[in-house]
Amino acid sequence: MLQPAVVLIETSHPGNIGATARAMKNMGLRDLRLVNPKQFPCAEATARASGADDVLAAVRQFDSIEAAIAGATLVVGASARSRSLPVPILDPRRCAEQVCTHPDTGRVAILFGRERTGLTNEELDLCHYLVQIPVNPEYPSLNIAAAVQVICYELRVAALAGAGTSQSDIDRDYATSEQMEQFYRHLEQTLVELEFLDPDNPRQLMRRLRRLFNRARPDQNEINILRGILTAANRKAPENSG
Amino acid sequence: MLQPAVVLIETSHPGNIGATARAMKNMGLRDLRLVNPKQFPCAEATARASGADDVLAAVRQFDSIEAAIAGATLVVGASARSRSLPVPILDPRRCAEQVCTHPDTGRVAILFGRERTGLTNEELDLCHYLVQIPVNPEYPSLNIAAAVQVICYELRVAALAGAGTSQSDIDRDYATSEQMEQFYRHLEQTLVELEFLDPDNPRQLMRRLRRLFNRARPDQNEINILRGILTAANRKAPENSG
Repeated sequence: MLQPAVVLIETSHPGNIGATARAMKNMGLRDLRLVNPKQFPCAEATARASGADDVLAAVRQFDSIEAAIAGATLVVGASARSRSLPVPILDPRRCAEQVCTHPDTGRVAILFGRERTGLTNEELDLCHYLVQIPVNPEYPSLNIAAAVQVICYELRVAALAGAGTSQSDIDRDYATSEQMEQFYRHLEQTLVELEFLDPDNPRQLMRRLRRLFNRARPDQNEINILRGILTAANRKAPENSG
Repeated sequence: MLQPAVVLIETSHPGNIGATARAMKNMGLRDLRLVNPKQFPCAEATARASGADDVLAAVRQFDSIEAAIAGATLVVGASARSRSLPVPILDPRRCAEQVCTHPDTGRVAILFGRERTGLTNEELDLCHYLVQIPVNPEYPSLNIAAAVQVICYELRVAALAGAGTSQSDIDRDYATSEQMEQFYRHLEQTLVELEFLDPDNPRQLMRRLRRLFNRARPDQNEINILRGILTAANRKAPENSG
């Protein structure tokens, strides 16, 4: 069975990579991807993996987050902080329900940010959901492998519960992250043509639009419609006058 | 509020004691008791505790398990293996329910055995329940601090249960159904202007777009942005030629 991928971004401590591999394997997961780890492979990672060497051996490394999640149709970011952003926040249990009812679990990516600073706003822009572990607000500092352990534990509980696929999600053919990026580039270019977006003063516009459309989780057909609308607008807009 | 105690028995690696303190504090617990640890206090424990020093500083050490759980009215043993013993086995969620509904949570002790060999049969005899994390049967070796993390996570979720609205829904100022209808009318009119929508043959286009945007549940600000984009497109599009 295809399984969600765990993506660790710019991990500083190789021990955390090993502990993450162990946590994943305990919970029956194996697809671990690293984006620019500080040090890997590494003896400390192997030591902390403690028998999950096969997960470490199968690790794939990427030099960008976009490459690491290429093909993903559901992207969830683990976030320690409360954000004032309109990205829906799930607790680990609801996150597991979402992942297990996703029609193609093998195209789910769960992102874990840097040990100290987590995910950047640009990385959050790629996420359909945030998952937040209900930590003690007076001491929210959760070790990254411990966070992976909790999230993967809930995934396993949900998978074992046979959380059935909800009817509405059956056969939905979600847009991939590449298709979403192409759509956002097309949207941005169109908004500039329409003089709605000032490239010299873009403010938060594209970020807000990303969050809106990410929440909607368009399928292939819907992305084709949206791209078609943009193309129609491009055709109608007069040549750039500037 | 009095809280359950975590009791680590004959822990070999001091790093695991530190990581346990951190896992507990993250989940709002503080009562850590050690029975004959191999080495404690210890710099490695402090390093892995990563700020949960206060939990480490308050650790109580005992030379017998009976002393460590003196006064406990509910004793739960964490067990990795399936046992053929007549001790009821709970999964972590049911364990948390038992603990949280126990009339005196401050008299609950949760026992974690040795890294390699777990709890002895004599120690199991002290337990009212076993709690078993549903590990991958092909790789059941869960790090002890990871096991503490999962058990304490479920304790925290159970304690917080019913504690109200998820953060993501707070303060979101959703568009009203009237605003959504105005938006859909504006969108439809714009798509006709762009000659993307043929009013004589509308097919399912508006229905599809409604489903897409309804899923996203736009807020007031987002609807204003979308309406602004439509207005910009209206301005740029040439006068209707028809």
